[in-house]
Amino acid sequence: MAASTHTKEMKNPSIVLYGAGDAKLQDTPVPEIVDSHDVLVRIAFVGVCGSDVHFYRHGGISRMVDPSVGITMGHEASGVIAAVGKAVTSVAVGDHVAIEPGQPCRYCRPCKSGTYHLCKNMRFAADPGPPVTPGTLSKYYCIAEDFVYKVPSSISLEETVLVEPTSVAVHAVKLGDVRPGETVVVMGSGTIGLLVASVVRQFGAHRIILVDILDRKLDFARTYLNCDTFRPDTAHTPEQNAAALLESTGLEEVDTVIECSGAPSSIETGIYILRGGGKYVQTGMGRPKIEFPMTVMSEKELLVKGCFRYSAGDYELAVSMISKGLIDVKPLISSTSKFEDATVAWEKTANGEGIKNLIRGVQD
Amino acid sequence: MAASTHTKEMKNPSIVLYGAGDAKLQDTPVPEIVDSHDVLVRIAFVGVCGSDVHFYRHGGISRMVDPSVGITMGHEASGVIAAVGKAVTSVAVGDHVAIEPGQPCRYCRPCKSGTYHLCKNMRFAADPGPPVTPGTLSKYYCIAEDFVYKVPSSISLEETVLVEPTSVAVHAVKLGDVRPGETVVVMGSGTIGLLVASVVRQFGAHRIILVDILDRKLDFARTYLNCDTFRPDTAHTPEQNAAALLESTGLEEVDTVIECSGAPSSIETGIYILRGGGKYVQTGMGRPKIEFPMTVMSEKELLVKGCFRYSAGDYELAVSMISKGLIDVKPLISSTSKFEDATVAWEKTANGEGIKNLIRGVQD
Amino acid sequence: MAASTHTKEMKNPSIVLYGAGDAKLQDTPVPEIVDSHDVLVRIAFVGVCGSDVHFYRHGGISRMVDPSVGITMGHEASGVIAAVGKAVTSVAVGDHVAIEPGQPCRYCRPCKSGTYHLCKNMRFAADPGPPVTPGTLSKYYCIAEDFVYKVPSSISLEETVLVEPTSVAVHAVKLGDVRPGETVVVMGSGTIGLLVASVVRQFGAHRIILVDILDRKLDFARTYLNCDTFRPDTAHTPEQNAAALLESTGLEEVDTVIECSGAPSSIETGIYILRGGGKYVQTGMGRPKIEFPMTVMSEKELLVKGCFRYSAGDYELAVSMISKGLIDVKPLISSTSKFEDATVAWEKTANGEGIKNLIRGVQD
Amino acid sequence: MAASTHTKEMKNPSIVLYGAGDAKLQDTPVPEIVDSHDVLVRIAFVGVCGSDVHFYRHGGISRMVDPSVGITMGHEASGVIAAVGKAVTSVAVGDHVAIEPGQPCRYCRPCKSGTYHLCKNMRFAADPGPPVTPGTLSKYYCIAEDFVYKVPSSISLEETVLVEPTSVAVHAVKLGDVRPGETVVVMGSGTIGLLVASVVRQFGAHRIILVDILDRKLDFARTYLNCDTFRPDTAHTPEQNAAALLESTGLEEVDTVIECSGAPSSIETGIYILRGGGKYVQTGMGRPKIEFPMTVMSEKELLVKGCFRYSAGDYELAVSMISKGLIDVKPLISSTSKFEDATVAWEKTANGEGIKNLIRGVQD
Repeated sequence: MAASTHTKEMKNPSIVLYGAGDAKLQDTPVPEIVDSHDVLVRIAFVGVCGSDVHFYRHGGISRMVDPSVGITMGHEASGVIAAVGKAVTSVAVGDHVAIEPGQPCRYCRPCKSGTYHLCKNMRFAADPGPPVTPGTLSKYYCIAEDFVYKVPSSISLEETVLVEPTSVAVHAVKLGDVRPGETVVVMGSGTIGLLVASVVRQFGAHRIILVDILDRKLDFARTYLNCDTFRPDTAHTPEQNAAALLESTGLEEVDTVIECSGAPSSIETGIYILRGGGKYVQTGMGRPKIEFPMTVMSEKELLVKGCFRYSAGDYELAVSMISKGLIDVKPLISSTSKFEDATVAWEKTANGEGIKNLIRGVQD
Repeated sequence: MAASTHTKEMKNPSIVLYGAGDAKLQDTPVPEIVDSHDVLVRIAFVGVCGSDVHFYRHGGISRMVDPSVGITMGHEASGVIAAVGKAVTSVAVGDHVAIEPGQPCRYCRPCKSGTYHLCKNMRFAADPGPPVTPGTLSKYYCIAEDFVYKVPSSISLEETVLVEPTSVAVHAVKLGDVRPGETVVVMGSGTIGLLVASVVRQFGAHRIILVDILDRKLDFARTYLNCDTFRPDTAHTPEQNAAALLESTGLEEVDTVIECSGAPSSIETGIYILRGGGKYVQTGMGRPKIEFPMTVMSEKELLVKGCFRYSAGDYELAVSMISKGLIDVKPLISSTSKFEDATVAWEKTANGEGIKNLIRGVQD
Repeated sequence: MAASTHTKEMKNPSIVLYGAGDAKLQDTPVPEIVDSHDVLVRIAFVGVCGSDVHFYRHGGISRMVDPSVGITMGHEASGVIAAVGKAVTSVAVGDHVAIEPGQPCRYCRPCKSGTYHLCKNMRFAADPGPPVTPGTLSKYYCIAEDFVYKVPSSISLEETVLVEPTSVAVHAVKLGDVRPGETVVVMGSGTIGLLVASVVRQFGAHRIILVDILDRKLDFARTYLNCDTFRPDTAHTPEQNAAALLESTGLEEVDTVIECSGAPSSIETGIYILRGGGKYVQTGMGRPKIEFPMTVMSEKELLVKGCFRYSAGDYELAVSMISKGLIDVKPLISSTSKFEDATVAWEKTANGEGIKNLIRGVQD
Repeated sequence: MAASTHTKEMKNPSIVLYGAGDAKLQDTPVPEIVDSHDVLVRIAFVGVCGSDVHFYRHGGISRMVDPSVGITMGHEASGVIAAVGKAVTSVAVGDHVAIEPGQPCRYCRPCKSGTYHLCKNMRFAADPGPPVTPGTLSKYYCIAEDFVYKVPSSISLEETVLVEPTSVAVHAVKLGDVRPGETVVVMGSGTIGLLVASVVRQFGAHRIILVDILDRKLDFARTYLNCDTFRPDTAHTPEQNAAALLESTGLEEVDTVIECSGAPSSIETGIYILRGGGKYVQTGMGRPKIEFPMTVMSEKELLVKGCFRYSAGDYELAVSMISKGLIDVKPLISSTSKFEDATVAWEKTANGEGIKNLIRGVQD
């Protein structure tokens, strides 16, 4: 990745993607505080997520980057408040914050009904648009005060990046309506699966089984979570894997499944292990259409829920769980690259190296 | 269908299926009141449902009839109380009743949690077993007092048969959590679709659109329900039909879809027309596995629910809606066959003749 | 009420209260569109509510008018869009609208969680403050576009005023979670009680009983709603009145009570008639503390809910119910006073004359 | 307490109350297994609860003992299965069990809707009737198999007695719908208050404040629960105590209050500290009618719930929490009296000695 000048000579160094594999480190205008509730954040760390990698490899997901415009990447980030609008009361310059990287319109039905994440006018970080909405891989990032969350000094700015995926997990577990005493199966043992299982425990589940097809991921999960695990046999059918999961864990049935892999066979297995009236949350993203066991879903009268990002209260709960030490995110941080080496961090994640790879913000 | 003797010489004439296409009118033992809460019902009318036809044609659905044992058919029925156990207080001999044709165990978690329809020990009428559970196509039928529902003299015993499918509809609409003011689309305009739409109106929906691929069904629906209708173009994709439905009705999106056809294209179309956070209920039964637009479900964070029979409170509400004249089931009754001609009624339904075909109970 | 000059010479004639009984018709500054989402409404009609009368008689409710500042009165209003901010898309100049007279902060937890009516920074019309928030009894009123609701030409601007109390009723009935088939008792037969009962019917209740101590109110209710009524004997205890209510209506118990009178005896009676697990909503406002049958509430495990104004979706549903003719508010309009005679309308309401008395907006 | 003969000569020694202060140790018929789902339990330990003491002192609560009939006391109990009906599958002779001491009818609406604890035909242990329903202070106790809960050998039969009050706590916390991250205040630090706070923690609350007027109870609570405590000043008003509670804990407001004292001042204080939309559960029993701040409840739109015993799933969750070591009930057990000294245990509890006083079952 080529940079035209040294970041010290730039006002707002940013990592801008212009198409598949085409990222540039370049200067962009420092975002201005327009609304009196806005704050300017000096970015400290940015995390790499699967969608960043997909963007880097393919130039977008459903919406593609305009090569003549580009898009500043990044949406998982921590930072320090650098300036505040005149109406801001909830944070002050110097505060360490986790950033919720989307701003809803505040005027539509979803916004006013407690589901602002479903706002059709949401402006989410690193959206190639239209309208183009820059991401957090810049020196500065501007957002409304209610979308930054102050973190105590007890958690580092590296850990603070993990508030974003923890909020994804909180949102999923809330949708799963996990209740104390439940038996919960989490399909997929990546960052989201591990955090979902961690949050599930905080919601009071009495049995948690983490599922993945890679032994090394399950080994990590057992150490990290002290929970049961199951490795499906990829040569077997979902029906067979469902039966094997129940037998090996001594369970008759499962209250809730939170699917974090997106794999079709995992989705089917998840449906088969649920009890009558059980709950299923689709957090993992995979192929647009998959084969789905509709009759089993009907006969067991299951509740199947889509799951999209995070919404009201999710960040607060993630911050509280991390800052109280109820969830330890440090073991999930695998590497930290320099800002100029953002693409190195993307490559690591693309190659399955580590769990959560970070990019350090611009340094003076 | 051959009968060995005239029904007048039998104690409990019954229509017994021994395999695909093999039904006999024969005598069976009169069921005895064993439990003090049981009642004996003299069957008045029995309705024909799609599952009866499937049994008649294929000898079962997932569980097949044992040809050496057979199964007394029928599960939609009305009747008159003929005898009561000594603890019975809710009904008396001579009362006209609708019959809820399944008895749960009353001891398990689903039974005690308000979801007895998910009881794994449910004994449902006309189940070929094991254990074999006889249906309602007999002179007499025995069931616990809390599974018969007294109907007022203002509704006929023919209409009373329709309490069963109306309860199916009530259950589906409750699962859909239809709220006053909503826009609801009902996919499929058979008996269940028509009753679901009728119940949706009673739940206060402000817009109802009934969907079917047959013009004659939609014509009936418009007259019966005075609602909007839409006929998908079977040559088009679900995406195209979804767009066409919204355009032709002037809607931007839909709050709730209740799918009563089971057709894969209908299921997909239903998912596409829903708003963010919208609700979908799968009432129709079709192929065990279907192609399902999982990514759309996730991105709109939909709520998708399986739907199975009926449960606590459903029959009461169906009886109340029909007896108060809020739902008129008379136009749905298409024919009435003699008991001895049960297979004629099944054939009519198999051939798509009429909406609800009835079989009259044994006459003296 | 004295006016210093004729309204035609004023820019923004307003009815301003300076203390108990001290109202003036005077000019105030025309509100300016500051936010790009604001609209300016030319007020058409303003309704008189019990709280206006309380203000007029006592100079405030919990917060008192500052006599040196005063407060523009009024919060139930209809009008015509006179100007719009540059970001406004949902309404246009000339549109007839119902006004929801409070603006929440949009940034706090209640605002983002779907309960903006509980926002602690709510600025509600005719609040003597601090901060002082003017009401709708002016020529012009400024508010965000998402707090005005376009009404079709089929309903008059007089009827449109009634959207406000209908929204109060919608909010109460939603809190009561009234479900189809329920038996609901509404305590108090004033404007709110009548509208609550109307909305309860739209939510599908099968039995509605309206309760009041005045025969003339119950006579009106029976004609207006075609429902059952009950007049408690004020010489009897709440226990006795509860028993009498059940006996006279042939009910064993009641699913939901919506209390719209605030009278202590009515509150107690409401608790006694409920079934185990029944629901109670306190809509009427009365004395700050009342004697409450806590043990009965516990033993029947009742759900008792406070009820405050209206929130997301309530106005939309009220507009839809009125404009579809499902609720007829015309019979509730008792009189229309000229703008200059606002105090006459207050006096009528204070004296119990009519149901809803209106004040016409400033005329050119 | 006089016993006519030695317990070894009795078939079914029982502690029978005939009126205030009048208890006898006497023989009663060994209960017979009538229903095939019944089990006979040899009682191991019985706990003393406030209601036992009230019975002993006053001869009943709302229903009084008939002196000519008497009532076998006791409802918190553990035991060992001594015999089983022929349909019993869930437990076997020799199993250690916690006993849920009430049997609902299984046929009524509450029973079938998941709220069997509200069954009007509930037969609860030690109910003086009519009909008279004996309690657990006997050698043998008969109940349906689904109302005994097998406990693992890791918990003693003494601890097993505490499943009953833990189930009371589980039921209360479920009603309070306590969610992860919440701030919860528990009023009253007796057995129920301590267990409610323990369960609240298992439901994921991030702040718990226990309130009592006795320092020694708060001292115990801090050690037992490692939580915050608050002692109201009985010379102050509820408003003052509410303000002091918030100030001393650094809280702005509280999500949920679970009231376990029944004291009027505690009830009022609880209402004042709640946030808008907050939740309140009345678990403590006190005077039938109390002064209640209705206007505050309305303006904050609180949710106030009665709370009665326990229902579906509560015992299962209590057993799971105790047997997994998530709740340690051993520190709550203060004394164990011999069966013949049941009244000694009642006196201890009456005098405020200890937390939970046990009575050992009949010994051979």
